Amino acid sequence: MSGLVSLVGAGPGDPDLLTLRAARRLAEADLLLYDALVAPEALALAPRARRFFVGKRPGHPGIGQDAIHRLMILWARRGRRVVRLKCGDPFVFGRGGEEAQALVEAGVPVEVVPGVSAALAAPALAGIPLTQRGVASAFVVLSGHASEAFGPIVDALPPRSATLVVLMGLATRGALTARLVGRGWDPETPAALVLAASTPRAHAWLGSLRELPHAETPKENAGDAGTVIVGEVVALRTALDVPWQARGDSHAAIG
Amino acid sequence: MSGLVSLVGAGPGDPDLLTLRAARRLAEADLLLYDALVAPEALALAPRARRFFVGKRPGHPGIGQDAIHRLMILWARRGRRVVRLKCGDPFVFGRGGEEAQALVEAGVPVEVVPGVSAALAAPALAGIPLTQRGVASAFVVLSGHASEAFGPIVDALPPRSATLVVLMGLATRGALTARLVGRGWDPETPAALVLAASTPRAHAWLGSLRELPHAETPKENAGDAGTVIVGEVVALRTALDVPWQARGDSHAAIG
Repeated sequence: MSGLVSLVGAGPGDPDLLTLRAARRLAEADLLLYDALVAPEALALAPRARRFFVGKRPGHPGIGQDAIHRLMILWARRGRRVVRLKCGDPFVFGRGGEEAQALVEAGVPVEVVPGVSAALAAPALAGIPLTQRGVASAFVVLSGHASEAFGPIVDALPPRSATLVVLMGLATRGALTARLVGRGWDPETPAALVLAASTPRAHAWLGSLRELPHAETPKENAGDAGTVIVGEVVALRTALDVPWQARGDSHAAIG
Repeated sequence: MSGLVSLVGAGPGDPDLLTLRAARRLAEADLLLYDALVAPEALALAPRARRFFVGKRPGHPGIGQDAIHRLMILWARRGRRVVRLKCGDPFVFGRGGEEAQALVEAGVPVEVVPGVSAALAAPALAGIPLTQRGVASAFVVLSGHASEAFGPIVDALPPRSATLVVLMGLATRGALTARLVGRGWDPETPAALVLAASTPRAHAWLGSLRELPHAETPKENAGDAGTVIVGEVVALRTALDVPWQARGDSHAAIG
């Protein structure tokens, strides 16, 4: 059996949202490199594999991107099956493209196993459709991670032209609001903040763009990066009351 | 056992890209309503279910949205398990939001099972990352379906501000190109057209925005709606040569 590196999307958190192919790649893996926020149950699907945490935690820089590349290349050249398990989809933020490039340049067989991105799953699990006839016909996905800023797109977006989805949006939601309102967005535009979607500590806040910077979050979600959704589609959530997602409060929390 | 309607994402085509939860919902289903382009292998995962095709085909209007709602509500009220299997993700285009709303209004238990959207999977399987440090920090997803037009977002997007992903983009790629070039996009901006991603007839064309309207597609892809990707990230594909996707020609086709 020849070596192969699979860049695998782990989905938003719940291992039940892994794809069938992802589960099979995990079962066959000799080496498993995984990020922060990957569920223990997903790791348990790789019983044969040596497992290494290669993610970044606040205050811990991690092993470095070059070391990750070297490890994958080394094991694949020895004929082993390597799974690089990344949160969400491997090619949406998170350097999946850089890893694929490094592997190809090293002549190592590589494949991409797409996953369910939190960009889509967080709003969906909170009952918010990203598009709806007559309401929104496009959506924009960006990262709220400080180092990547928002880019020119936030300043360019005309109000109500699309649903806005900001991954890792919790910490920078104030800056986002300021820029959108400065661009002419109505402060009363519906907004949502979804934390830890698909996990037992899932939490959703719903309100307006004006209220977004002040949205309070539960203590148990302190480590979650959050997904922010801005747009008229968020208001459609109020018409939804998905029973299996209810957790006491009528719409402030999902489970 | 009480009734439940599951709005389930079928992923981009390959049944191997269904989620574990989607496969389990199919196995338990009493009634399965499915769209065009859902793979026969996915339907086979629901051996107990009565199956109805409720999609739209050119020249055949289908059974109508109201009838779909009525059928789901009727079966769920009888305590049955209903799976509404939709291509890609259930809440990205395709009226998933409307269906959820109708079910909630009828008091029927409903859940959403997120799926792998072709918006992410088509570029990923063609080796194109939607974001990359220093190249693109955001992406925009819209529909090329004529009736939804492109909306205000295409006219507003500054050149190179984001990767552009157009679902069902094959037929309207000429109009897209004209509007982007009119907005100031460089005609030499890299562009890709991915057809039937993850299926045996998968095909990818790579070129420039200028060439996109004239991209030729294989006869066997005549029924495919196609995913268009525009942006500098497309050029990164040339550095990738994913072996299991190669199909003869070095980068004109993936399999």
